[in-house]
Amino acid sequence: MPVLNPEFLAALTDTVGPEGLSLGNAIPERHHADWSGTPPQAPLALLRPASTAQVSAVLRACHAHRVPVVPQGGLTGLAGAAVPSAGAVALSLDRMNAIEAVHADARTLTVQAGATLQAAQEAAQEAGCLLGVDLGARGSCQIGGTLSTNAGGNGVVQFGMMREQTLGLEVVLADGTVLDMMRPLVKNNTGYDLKQHFIGAEGTLGVITRALLRLHPAPRARATALAAVADCDSALRLLRRLQTHCPGGVAAFELMWQDFLDHALRWTRTPAPLAQSHPLLVLTDLSGNDEPALTEALEAVLGQALEEGLVRDAVIAQSRAQAASLWRLREVTAEFPTHLAPINFDISLPLDQLGRFADRCVDALSERWPGQRSLRFGHLGDGNLHLSTDARSLGGLNFDEAEHAVEAIVYALVAQAGGSISAEHGIGLHKKPFLHASRNPAELAVMRAIKQALDPLHLLNPGKVFDPA
Amino acid sequence: MPVLNPEFLAALTDTVGPEGLSLGNAIPERHHADWSGTPPQAPLALLRPASTAQVSAVLRACHAHRVPVVPQGGLTGLAGAAVPSAGAVALSLDRMNAIEAVHADARTLTVQAGATLQAAQEAAQEAGCLLGVDLGARGSCQIGGTLSTNAGGNGVVQFGMMREQTLGLEVVLADGTVLDMMRPLVKNNTGYDLKQHFIGAEGTLGVITRALLRLHPAPRARATALAAVADCDSALRLLRRLQTHCPGGVAAFELMWQDFLDHALRWTRTPAPLAQSHPLLVLTDLSGNDEPALTEALEAVLGQALEEGLVRDAVIAQSRAQAASLWRLREVTAEFPTHLAPINFDISLPLDQLGRFADRCVDALSERWPGQRSLRFGHLGDGNLHLSTDARSLGGLNFDEAEHAVEAIVYALVAQAGGSISAEHGIGLHKKPFLHASRNPAELAVMRAIKQALDPLHLLNPGKVFDPA
Repeated sequence: MPVLNPEFLAALTDTVGPEGLSLGNAIPERHHADWSGTPPQAPLALLRPASTAQVSAVLRACHAHRVPVVPQGGLTGLAGAAVPSAGAVALSLDRMNAIEAVHADARTLTVQAGATLQAAQEAAQEAGCLLGVDLGARGSCQIGGTLSTNAGGNGVVQFGMMREQTLGLEVVLADGTVLDMMRPLVKNNTGYDLKQHFIGAEGTLGVITRALLRLHPAPRARATALAAVADCDSALRLLRRLQTHCPGGVAAFELMWQDFLDHALRWTRTPAPLAQSHPLLVLTDLSGNDEPALTEALEAVLGQALEEGLVRDAVIAQSRAQAASLWRLREVTAEFPTHLAPINFDISLPLDQLGRFADRCVDALSERWPGQRSLRFGHLGDGNLHLSTDARSLGGLNFDEAEHAVEAIVYALVAQAGGSISAEHGIGLHKKPFLHASRNPAELAVMRAIKQALDPLHLLNPGKVFDPA
Repeated sequence: MPVLNPEFLAALTDTVGPEGLSLGNAIPERHHADWSGTPPQAPLALLRPASTAQVSAVLRACHAHRVPVVPQGGLTGLAGAAVPSAGAVALSLDRMNAIEAVHADARTLTVQAGATLQAAQEAAQEAGCLLGVDLGARGSCQIGGTLSTNAGGNGVVQFGMMREQTLGLEVVLADGTVLDMMRPLVKNNTGYDLKQHFIGAEGTLGVITRALLRLHPAPRARATALAAVADCDSALRLLRRLQTHCPGGVAAFELMWQDFLDHALRWTRTPAPLAQSHPLLVLTDLSGNDEPALTEALEAVLGQALEEGLVRDAVIAQSRAQAASLWRLREVTAEFPTHLAPINFDISLPLDQLGRFADRCVDALSERWPGQRSLRFGHLGDGNLHLSTDARSLGGLNFDEAEHAVEAIVYALVAQAGGSISAEHGIGLHKKPFLHASRNPAELAVMRAIKQALDPLHLLNPGKVFDPA
């Protein structure tokens, strides 16, 4: 067990009290790692402050003693950003989980960083509003983590990512300074918009302690359809027609390639939703207040697209149950780990390149690992492609070597296409070796300059996202 | 005429050629000032580079010779950010005015910083799309300037400000480094979102040279109504009902106080649009594709609000001509300077405080300057209040003293209410003395740290927004 400087330990105990400090075996193992598969690491100490003032005092103490700090939210991250580094303390926000205020008329939610996304969603819902971000980990992930990774998920095509929901933030800087940017203002052009720095910074520039989020009116109706198209370009044209017909109304527009659907049907033992097999399926939801009007809109747009041959076949859900059964196909992703040992990619591409990229990727993987299985799905409105391949289990490399070889092939193609190696999961530790594929040297130099300006001692989540120059 | 170091002058001539460099009296006077009323100042030289490479070479030369640079767009700013400082060169982007690409399916527009907003709007329109930002100076203001001030204008309630339209930027840093962030990606969580730093930074962190903007589907129909309500809280409830009824469809929601309307009617010699006088009027537009459906939505929401007493009276435009005549009342702001010598405020407030603030403001001004006339209007969805007062012409102070005294009263109330002294115009020179009213010391310290990190020699637009520590 590492030895803590007694003066530092006394300072920590003074700030958070015994209930806010755990050491050694008393630190729950869940704080050693996240969902990324990064090897677990016990932190020097686990700190669980109960207030912004305590976060500030903890960071002041760490700053004075030059001890690095790894901020932790719900630990559901897929890139390793919240995994402790050796010799660092872990700073969990889980005791700061209050929903402080919901204003239905102003459409704002004030929340502490440790509240789960689901708790925030439910508070919005009770006020007749909707929080625009939703994702599978909603019950575990915390608002601070979703902001620090600029999480996306299911609703991005309609409402954007966490950045777009954020009106205000409270952040504690590396030296303990509390940066209060919690003004509920839509328009505020008074110098630099500092809150933007901390969104998506994966805890390397400050610790987010509170947030002021904007809410949307809660839609009362939804309509769902599944449509078959020839390729991504056709899917994009269909999306644009739906968005033009129903401005603001397209709530989901998911792509499922044939490889994905074939596996989904086999694993769920579901009959095929359309009579024939097609290269690409689109699953779309419209949201609004009038279900018949939404269904009519789907009928009008899909009907004309069928006539023109843009759409090859389509089914509009006639009930909530039928919509749910269509969505179960898309949600089979939760079963991937049961059926194959996949490497999962979270890539984004310029919209007009998504289809060609997806094909080129599978070709390159198949050439290197004949017989590999790739499953492709994505959020077209956001240019977000998820690709899972079992190539790792082929070809005689060990587990980690194979993963790196697969990633090297895919990320080189991403770089060629001008895409992003991380659409929504972040860089953390896991994607750090490939960051150069999506960011040029000038950008990396500016990132380092910003880090140096806000955290000159490199105490906040050191070694995450990028290394110092 | 100031003397230029001959070596520096040679370097400039080498980079931009004779057609890109003006000196002394050859510099058009329009480059001495903007629309803010800040006293004009001749720059050391006017540089008009024709490419990003030339901007980079100019900034490299200025960096080597320690000469400050004031970036200039369309010079329509209202805060003085583009007015040259003594001893600085002015860098105009007006020759970089190409619309480089419009992709209708991807809904993106690639544009050089010197293109006017109107040219960008027209390019979007030709592709069947809409650029989400519009403002009165559209024919003169340039994309680089609208980004550097994070301009808002008429469509913010529906589409947000320039920040929300921005997918990518190209920026040249103080030392001439070209920072290429022009990826057309909706989702890209690969380290810090650096483009955010430069939006709204008023040219103090880098020179924006190109932008990749997102477009929206162009709506084909519009419906307009004018409604009378008792107060801002009622107006906000009406806005929320409209937004709930027509998600994404509220394209404008303008407030006009009785003081504003009385003057507007008198100056335009227009008959009153409603039978009686009311404390507050709302002018609202819905946009979409189906005009009868939009009108029906207005009828449904306003009808119920009338029954409940939330709305006191209302008229729905029965034709485009009638809609235009309702909008002419709101657009009387263009005539303010003809009828009074106003001091104009551009304030934003938390939505639930806007009404009380507006009243408190008029009370405070009337107490100090009995008989002062205040005209109040605003964009409720954005919390943006515009207030114009002729208090300056009363009370025996000189022009500048009176302006400062009026501002001191208003901005003190803004600070109390947690509002913003600049909703959309920026700080520039004009509001610098009051920046502390909207930003706390910790925020100002972080702004200075960012400035120091990106422009350590303080060569980019020095003295604008804030002074070095």
